[in-house]
Amino acid sequence: MKPNIISFLLGVLFIQIFLHENSARVQRKRKEKTPTCGYQTCPKVDSEKLNIHLVPHTHDDVGWLKTVDQYYFGSRSSVQKAGVQYILDTVVQELLKDPSRRFIYVETAFLWKWWSNQDETVRDQVRSLINQGRLEIISGGWSMNDEAVTHYNSIIDQFSWGLRRLNDTFGSCARPHIGWQIDPFGHSREQASIFAQMGFDGLFFGRLDYQDKTKRLNDKTAEFIWKASPNLGEKADLFTNVLYNNYSPPPGFCFDVLCDDEPMIDDPESPDNNIDTRIDSFLQFADKQAEHYRTKNIIMTMGGDFTYQAAQMWYKNLDKFIRYTTERNGSTVNVFYSTPSCYLKAVNDLNLTWPTKTDDFFPYASDPNAYWTGYFTSRPTIKFFERIGNNFLQVCKQLSVLANLQSVDKNLEEFREAMGIMQHHDAVTGTEKQKVANDYARILYKNMYQGDDIVSSSLSKWILKNKNENSSPVQFHSCLELNISSCTYTEENTNFVVTLYNPQSQPVTTYVRLPVQGQSYSVKDSTGTEQKTQIVPIPTPVINIPGRKSKATVELVFAAIKIPALGYQSYYISENNAAQHVHLSHATINSSMDSALFNITVNGNGNVIVQDKHQDIEYTQSFHYYEGAEGNNKVFLNRSSGAYIFRPKTSDIKNLTNTGSHKIYKGPLVDEMHITINDWISQVVRVYNKENFLEFNWLVGPIPVGEHIGKEVITKYSSNLKTNKIFYTDSNGREMIKRIRDFRPTWDVKIAEPVSGNYYPVTSKIFINDKKRSLKLSVLTDRSEGGTSLRDGEIELMVHRRLLSDDAFGVGEPLNEEAFGTGLETRGQHYVIGGRASDVSSIVLKEKKLAQKLALRPWTFITPVEDITFEQWSDAYNMEYSGISKAIPANIHILTLEPWKSNSILLRLEHIFEIGEDPRYSQPTEINIQDLFSTFRIVSVRETTLGGNQWISELNRLKWNVESNNIINNQSNYVQEINQDGAINVLLKPMEIRTFIVEVAAK
Amino acid sequence: MKPNIISFLLGVLFIQIFLHENSARVQRKRKEKTPTCGYQTCPKVDSEKLNIHLVPHTHDDVGWLKTVDQYYFGSRSSVQKAGVQYILDTVVQELLKDPSRRFIYVETAFLWKWWSNQDETVRDQVRSLINQGRLEIISGGWSMNDEAVTHYNSIIDQFSWGLRRLNDTFGSCARPHIGWQIDPFGHSREQASIFAQMGFDGLFFGRLDYQDKTKRLNDKTAEFIWKASPNLGEKADLFTNVLYNNYSPPPGFCFDVLCDDEPMIDDPESPDNNIDTRIDSFLQFADKQAEHYRTKNIIMTMGGDFTYQAAQMWYKNLDKFIRYTTERNGSTVNVFYSTPSCYLKAVNDLNLTWPTKTDDFFPYASDPNAYWTGYFTSRPTIKFFERIGNNFLQVCKQLSVLANLQSVDKNLEEFREAMGIMQHHDAVTGTEKQKVANDYARILYKNMYQGDDIVSSSLSKWILKNKNENSSPVQFHSCLELNISSCTYTEENTNFVVTLYNPQSQPVTTYVRLPVQGQSYSVKDSTGTEQKTQIVPIPTPVINIPGRKSKATVELVFAAIKIPALGYQSYYISENNAAQHVHLSHATINSSMDSALFNITVNGNGNVIVQDKHQDIEYTQSFHYYEGAEGNNKVFLNRSSGAYIFRPKTSDIKNLTNTGSHKIYKGPLVDEMHITINDWISQVVRVYNKENFLEFNWLVGPIPVGEHIGKEVITKYSSNLKTNKIFYTDSNGREMIKRIRDFRPTWDVKIAEPVSGNYYPVTSKIFINDKKRSLKLSVLTDRSEGGTSLRDGEIELMVHRRLLSDDAFGVGEPLNEEAFGTGLETRGQHYVIGGRASDVSSIVLKEKKLAQKLALRPWTFITPVEDITFEQWSDAYNMEYSGISKAIPANIHILTLEPWKSNSILLRLEHIFEIGEDPRYSQPTEINIQDLFSTFRIVSVRETTLGGNQWISELNRLKWNVESNNIINNQSNYVQEINQDGAINVLLKPMEIRTFIVEVAAK
Repeated sequence: MKPNIISFLLGVLFIQIFLHENSARVQRKRKEKTPTCGYQTCPKVDSEKLNIHLVPHTHDDVGWLKTVDQYYFGSRSSVQKAGVQYILDTVVQELLKDPSRRFIYVETAFLWKWWSNQDETVRDQVRSLINQGRLEIISGGWSMNDEAVTHYNSIIDQFSWGLRRLNDTFGSCARPHIGWQIDPFGHSREQASIFAQMGFDGLFFGRLDYQDKTKRLNDKTAEFIWKASPNLGEKADLFTNVLYNNYSPPPGFCFDVLCDDEPMIDDPESPDNNIDTRIDSFLQFADKQAEHYRTKNIIMTMGGDFTYQAAQMWYKNLDKFIRYTTERNGSTVNVFYSTPSCYLKAVNDLNLTWPTKTDDFFPYASDPNAYWTGYFTSRPTIKFFERIGNNFLQVCKQLSVLANLQSVDKNLEEFREAMGIMQHHDAVTGTEKQKVANDYARILYKNMYQGDDIVSSSLSKWILKNKNENSSPVQFHSCLELNISSCTYTEENTNFVVTLYNPQSQPVTTYVRLPVQGQSYSVKDSTGTEQKTQIVPIPTPVINIPGRKSKATVELVFAAIKIPALGYQSYYISENNAAQHVHLSHATINSSMDSALFNITVNGNGNVIVQDKHQDIEYTQSFHYYEGAEGNNKVFLNRSSGAYIFRPKTSDIKNLTNTGSHKIYKGPLVDEMHITINDWISQVVRVYNKENFLEFNWLVGPIPVGEHIGKEVITKYSSNLKTNKIFYTDSNGREMIKRIRDFRPTWDVKIAEPVSGNYYPVTSKIFINDKKRSLKLSVLTDRSEGGTSLRDGEIELMVHRRLLSDDAFGVGEPLNEEAFGTGLETRGQHYVIGGRASDVSSIVLKEKKLAQKLALRPWTFITPVEDITFEQWSDAYNMEYSGISKAIPANIHILTLEPWKSNSILLRLEHIFEIGEDPRYSQPTEINIQDLFSTFRIVSVRETTLGGNQWISELNRLKWNVESNNIINNQSNYVQEINQDGAINVLLKPMEIRTFIVEVAAK
Repeated sequence: MKPNIISFLLGVLFIQIFLHENSARVQRKRKEKTPTCGYQTCPKVDSEKLNIHLVPHTHDDVGWLKTVDQYYFGSRSSVQKAGVQYILDTVVQELLKDPSRRFIYVETAFLWKWWSNQDETVRDQVRSLINQGRLEIISGGWSMNDEAVTHYNSIIDQFSWGLRRLNDTFGSCARPHIGWQIDPFGHSREQASIFAQMGFDGLFFGRLDYQDKTKRLNDKTAEFIWKASPNLGEKADLFTNVLYNNYSPPPGFCFDVLCDDEPMIDDPESPDNNIDTRIDSFLQFADKQAEHYRTKNIIMTMGGDFTYQAAQMWYKNLDKFIRYTTERNGSTVNVFYSTPSCYLKAVNDLNLTWPTKTDDFFPYASDPNAYWTGYFTSRPTIKFFERIGNNFLQVCKQLSVLANLQSVDKNLEEFREAMGIMQHHDAVTGTEKQKVANDYARILYKNMYQGDDIVSSSLSKWILKNKNENSSPVQFHSCLELNISSCTYTEENTNFVVTLYNPQSQPVTTYVRLPVQGQSYSVKDSTGTEQKTQIVPIPTPVINIPGRKSKATVELVFAAIKIPALGYQSYYISENNAAQHVHLSHATINSSMDSALFNITVNGNGNVIVQDKHQDIEYTQSFHYYEGAEGNNKVFLNRSSGAYIFRPKTSDIKNLTNTGSHKIYKGPLVDEMHITINDWISQVVRVYNKENFLEFNWLVGPIPVGEHIGKEVITKYSSNLKTNKIFYTDSNGREMIKRIRDFRPTWDVKIAEPVSGNYYPVTSKIFINDKKRSLKLSVLTDRSEGGTSLRDGEIELMVHRRLLSDDAFGVGEPLNEEAFGTGLETRGQHYVIGGRASDVSSIVLKEKKLAQKLALRPWTFITPVEDITFEQWSDAYNMEYSGISKAIPANIHILTLEPWKSNSILLRLEHIFEIGEDPRYSQPTEINIQDLFSTFRIVSVRETTLGGNQWISELNRLKWNVESNNIINNQSNYVQEINQDGAINVLLKPMEIRTFIVEVAAK
C-alpha cells in the first residue's frame, strides 16, 4: 500500500503528540546532542588478534532463596549474601571512574526499584553512562523469565513493562538489543521468537543439554541462527550464542567479594606476585575456548549470581588484568571491557554464514541423571495462581481501557510488576525456597486483591445506564478460592449480582459454578429471565481440604450463554425460600455415566474408561506415581529428585490401591462422576450439557511420605491411538512442537533416565495423533505441567510432587510443600478432547477455544445486593455490554488491550492459528480496528515491535546469513493499512502478533 | 635554666633548617590555610541528650590467618575474606560523598602500602580528608603491637616509624591523639606509659579480664586515669576507656559485607521494613550501655576485623540509621559519626573527676577457663628470632649513624618495617597460622640478611685507618644460627676476623663462642696478643637438631674484654696446624661441678641443685610439663589449650623420667655441665670464669605427642626463699610489676584455673625476694615467656608448647609446630642470678647488665680472610673503636640512635633505673651530649615527644582530674639545657626517656 495524504496527516499528528508527551526527555536529548549509544560505542576489535570480550555482569534473581525485597536490600545474609542495591550503587560509581569500563544490567524489576531511590545526581550519572554505552541494559524484562512453564501472554507482558520503564526513564539508548537468558533451565522456541519480534539481534544463554553442548562446541555450532517459528519466517530468526562457561568467569577469575579466587597481585616485591601465572592460565583457557567458536572473538562473562556488590574489587582487578595482558610482549590477544551486544556486533561484522536450528532446548540435562524436568510441575498451586493472575490482569487491563481510566493507575502498575516477578525463573517454576514461594503468593494475592479496586472503579462507571448520574460506585468482588469451591460473597449472601467479564475476543458460553449454602436459587439474566440451575454437591475431599473455610457443601450451576467479547453479563441471584425450581443432583452408584457423546465407566482400580461415541477413540484415565530418587547428590549417578530435577527411583510406575468409591450426579446442565480413589487422590469427571470435551477435575494430596519415600503423581490417558513414538507439546502456550520419544532432532541422544529424559513442558496443551486413522487426542491443562508419552497412545502428565531431598542445585530444601500441618493438596483441571484430525476445522478451533477458556476464563465478580431488587439493579445498570462493537474473526485474538500513556493504549492483535492447522482459519486475515471498540475511537495508530518500545519503522535488526533456509518465508509487511474511508485494516498472517500504540479518545 | 643568646641563636638556626626541610609540605599547608584538624573538627554534642558517637572502623591484622601481603591484596579468600586494599579504596570514596561521614585508620603498615599505590588524585583526596578530620589516623604504629611479649625498645621503634611515615606524608593533621589497642590480649602498663609519653590523650581497648570488666561496668570505672608509671608521674598518666562491646557494633548492627545482620529497610511498602524495630533495639542497647558510663556520651565501634571492604554498605545503612533515629519524634539521643578522639574531647570538656589505676591488665581471661596466657610462650623460636631481630636492627641503626650513612637507606627502612610487623599482636605472639609464621620468619630473615649489607657498607668505612684510601669494602657476615652452634663462616674458614659490635652504652665483656671444625685456634686482639681460648664440645642433642647443617662439633670460646660502648673489637683468628696452646675441655662424670661461687650438682632425676656459696641461696632447677587440656571448645568449661590459651588438663605438674646422663667440661674460661634428661630435653649449665650468674642453656623438643597429649614444658627454679606469694615480672622489659599469687589489686578475683590464672608475661625478667632475709633471685630470659610463682620460693617459666587442639579463638590450627618432619626443637637461655636485695647496688645493676646482654648482645660479624695476615689487617683497619668519645653514666642508656632525615638523627636517652632501686643509680643524672659522639658533632638539638613526631614544646595534652593521686609527682622539665660553654646537658630522672632530633655534621 502506498502512503496517502491521510496517513501523512496522521503521521504529523502523531509526531506532535509524541513530541509533546516526551518533551522533557527530548529536550534533554537535544542538549546532549544525539547520544552515540548502541553499537556505535563498541570498542574496536583487532582482526589480527583474538578479541576477548570481557563482560562484567551480575545475575540478580528476582527472588529465589530470598524474597525480592530481601535481595534488593540485602537482608537475610545468612541465607544468601546478596544485596542488589549495593550492586547498582557501586557499579555506577566504578563505571564513572574509567570510560573504558562497562557493565550490563538485566533485571528491570531491580533497576527500577533502585532508580526510584536515587537522587538527581546519581540519576544524571546513570543516564550519562547509558547514553555512552558504558552501562548497557540488556534483555530488560521485569525479570529474567523462565521459558518452560510461562505463558507467552505473560512473557510478552513482562517484557513490555520492563522495556517501557526503560524507555520512559532513559530513552532509546536504554533499548536492549540482546536476549540474555543465562540461567533458565532450558530454552523455548517461543521465547526466541518473541525476542526476534521484539527486534532483538541475538540471544545468549548458558544452560542446554550437556550432550548437545559438547556436540555444539565440538562442531562449532554453539553459535547459530535459531529459526524460532515455522510460521513467522525470518521475523523470528535469532542469532543465538551458547556461552562457553555458562555465565561464569574463567575458573580462577571471579574477582567478587563472594568469590575465593586470587586477586591480581602486582607488587613486584611480594612473594605472592601472580601476574604472570594468572595471565598464562587465562590465556590457556581463552585459547581453549576460542577453538570452539568460528570467529576471532570470544565472550567471557565476568560475573555471577549477585556479584558486584563491591564492584570495586572486580574493576580494580580487571583493570590490572587487562593492563598486564595488553602490556605483555608479543601478545596475540586483545582483551577489553565489552558487552554481549558489542561481541555480537563484532561477530556480525564478519559477515559469515551460520548454521540453523528449528527445534527447542528442552529438556535440559546437566548430567546423565539430572534432567531438569521436575520444575515443569513443581509447586502446582503457585503455577495455577500465576496463570489465574494473568487471567485477572488481562481483565483489569481491558476494563481499564474500556472504562477510559487514567493511564497511570498505581494498582495496575503494581499488578503488572507482580506478574512480571512471577515470571522469574525461580518463581513460577517452583524452584524457590518455601518462604519465598509464600512471599510470591503474598505479592500476587495483594495485587489480585487490589485488582478488585481497578475493576470496581472501571466497571462501576461502565455499567451505569446514565453515565452522568451521581450514583455511588459498585463494589465488585472476585472469588479467589473458587478453585476449591469456596466464596464468601456467594455463601454469606442471599441476594447478589454475578457479573461475568469475558476477556476473550469472541463471545463465550460458560457454566458458572458458585459455592452456596442454600438449596435453591433464582438466577435472572438481564431480561429478568430465570435461568436453568442445578445444585451439585461439592465432593467430600474438597470440603475437607485443610484451610478451606467455606461452609458451602454444594455449588449452584447455571449457564452463562454467549457472554460478549470484551464484555460482560450480569445475573441477579437470590436464594429461594423453599426448594423450588431447583434441580438438586442426586447420587447414583452406577459404574457408568452415559451421555449423548460419551460413555464413562469407572473400573475396580478407580480408573476411568472413556468411550467417545462419535469418534473411534477410547481411553483410560488413571492416576499413578513415581517414587522420587533419593541420593546424596555427591556421587555421580546419585542425584536426588527435587524442585528442579525429576528423577524417579526406577522407571516403574507405581499403581494405587483403590480404597475409595464413586458417585454419579446427573442433571440438566452437567453430569458428574465423583471418584475417590484413596484418601489422597480423588476427582470429578464432568460432562457439561452438549459439550464435546471431558473435564477431569482432580484433587491430589496430601501425598503420603510416611515411609520416607517422596512421590511424584501423574495422571495418564491411555488411548487406542497408534502414535509411533510421536507427541506434541506447546511452546509457552502458542505454537506446537513435535516430540519423538527417546530422540532429539539435532544429535544422537543417549538417555540414562528413560522417564525424565522424555518429559517436556506442557504449558497448556499436549496431544497425540494416529496418522493412519486421522485421530487426535488432546489434553489441555489449567497450568504448566510436565508431560510425555512414554508408550504409544499414552499421554502422561505430572500433576503434583512431594519430595524429601534437595536436588543440590542451590535451593537447599526438599520440595516438600506443607500447609496446615500436612502435605499440600492441589486441585486442578484437564480438558480432554478427541477428534478427527483431518476434520481439523472443528477440532483445532475447539482446542484453541478450550485453551482460552482455561487461560482467559470469564471472570466472576460478586456484588452483594441485600436491599436492591432485580428491578432496581436493572434500571440503574446495564446487565450486558460489549467493549467491541463488531465481531472479531475467530482466528484473531486481542492479545493485549491496556492503558499505555495519557490518551493512548497498547493494542496487540494475534493470529492464533498456525500454517496448515485449518484450511479456513490458517489463512491471513484482515481486521479493521477503526470503530472496533465501543467505548473509544482511534485518533491515530502506530505500529511498534512486539515489546512496544520501538516504532516498527525504525526497526533495523542486524542481518545474518544462514547455511540453510528451509523455512517458509512469511515476512510480514509492517505497515498498518489506512484506507481513505478511515478504516484501519490490519492484516495478520498465521501466528503473527502485531503491536500498536493507539491514540484514543472517548466516544 | 634561663634562655640565653646562644640558645636563642640555635633556635633560629633550627627554625631555618626545619623550614627548609619541610618546605614542600609547608607550602601546601600555606595554600590550604591552617587546616582545622584535630579536636576542632569534632561534631557538636548536645548536652541535653545522650550523645552516641558512632565510630566507623576496621581492624586490620598485620598478618594472622593470612600473611601481610595476602591481607593487603585480599588473596586466599578461602582462608579469610579480607583485602585491605579494598577497604581503603572504598572508604575514601565513601567519605568523599558526605562531609559528616568519618572513619579512623590505625595500621600504618597497610596505609603506607596502599598509599604507595595511589595516584595523585586519590592522594589529594586523602590529604584533604585527613586535614578535615574526616579520615582520622589513630594509634598509627606500623602495626597494633602486642603488649605482653614485646620489648619496649621495639614498641617505641614501631610507633616511631609509623608516626614518621604519617608525619612525612600527611603532616600534623595525621598525628594520632589516641591509643587504639582494641584487640591485644591484655594490656601492659608500659604500653600506656609509652602512649602517654608520645603525647597521646587517651587509650581505648576491648579485652580485659571478664570479672574486671563486669566490675568496672557495674561501678562505672570503665573509664579511668591509668597512672602508668610510678616513676614518671603525670607524664605517664593516660585516660583509658574500656569499650563496652569490645570493638564490635551493637548486636545486629554490623552492616558489613562479611556480616549477616539486617540492613536498614526503609521502603514503606516492604513487608521487611524494619526501621522502627531496628531503632528500638538500638536505643535499648544504647541505654543499657549508657548506664555503665559516667557521661552522656557513649562510643560505639561500628566495625570489626577487616570490615569496610565494601564501605558503601556500611555508610549507606548508617546514613539511614542516623537519619531515621534523628527524625524520630521526641528523640532523646543524638547519634552521629564520630571518632574516638572526638568522643574523648566531649568527655574531657565535662571536666569531671576520674578514678585511677596503677597496675596492669594481665592476665586476660575471657571466661573462667580461658586465660590468654599460652601466647606468652607460644612459638618460642619466633619470639627469639624477633628479639634477636631487634638486637640486630639497633646495631644496624647505630652503625648507620656512626658511619654517617644517608638517612634514606632502603634496606634499613625495610628492616624497620619488618620489625614493625613482627610486633603485631598475632606475630611475635605466636598466635598466627603456621604458614603465616613462616612468612614472618621469611620477612625477618630477608631483612636480617640485608642487614649485613647495611653493616658492611658502614663498618667498611668506619674501620678504615686511612679514610681516603680506596680500599675495597669489607664484607661482614652475621651468623644467624649461632643459637644452635652453627656458622658457615667460622666452620669453613681457617682464617677469619671476628668483629664484635657492642650496641650497649657501656663497655661490655663477653665470652665469644664460635662453632668450628678444628681443634686449636689462635685468637689475636688488636695488639696482636694471643687470647686465652677454650674448645668446648657441642652437646650431641644440639648436633642432632634436625635441619642443622653444621659440621661443627665443638665451639671455640674466648673472652672479648670490654668491647667499647657503641664500638667494636676485632679479633684475628686462625686455625692452628697442630693442637697447640689449646685447652680442650675433657669430660668428667662427677655429679657436681664446683667453682669459686657455685656448687652445682645434678641429682638422679636430672635436676640441677645450685648452691650460691656467697649468698644463703639454694635452688633446684628442674623440667616438667603440663598436659594441655583438650576440649571441644563448645561446652562451657571445655576449652582446649591452644596458641592463645594455656589450660592444663589438671593443675598437677608432670615430672620427667630421667633416662639420660650428664657430663662436666671444665676449662679456663667456662665450666659446663651437659645434662641429657631424656631424648627431648637436654641442657647445658654454664659458669663463666668469675661471673656471678649461671646460664641455663636448654634444648627442648621434639615434644612427644604420641598418645595424643599436648604438652607445655616448663622449667622451675625452686629456692629456699620465703616469698609470701609475691613475685615480680617486668612490663615490656622496663619497669617491674609486683604480682601476688591468686590475687588482683583491683577486684576480688575468683580463679577457676589456678595455674594459668597466675601466669604473667615475662618479657625479660622475673624475680622473687625474701624480704626477711633480704635475698633476691632473678631469672632473665632471652625471649618472652610465660612465668609465675605457684609456690613460695619458686620461679616457673614455660619454655615450649606443643598442642593438638585449636583453642577456638580464630587461628583454627592447633599449636603444633613441626620442622623437618618432627616436632620443633627450641634452644634458649636463662640467666639466673641471686643476691642480697639490700645490697642493691650490685645486684640490680648486674641484672640490668645481664638483661642488656641478652637484649643487646654484642653482634658477631665474621670476615673470612684466607689471604690476609693479621699484620695486613691491622695495618689497614682499626681493630677497636668506639662511637662515643666519653663514658656514659652506668644508669643512662642510649635507647635509640638512628638516621632520621638528611643530616639529622634520632637520639633517645634513657634512665634505666627505677626510683629506689639503687641509692646511687636511681638518682637523676645529667649527661652532656655535645662531643659525646666520636664520628659527628651536634649542630642543633630539639626535643620531641617519645614518638619523635611532635616538638615537646608543642605538646598540649588534655588535662584530666583524678580522684586520687598517690603517685610521686615527677614531672620532668622538657627543655634540654644548653650552657654557655656549648655543653648540651640532658637531665634524666629515673625511668625517663627523652627523645631528640639532632642535626649533625660529620667530624
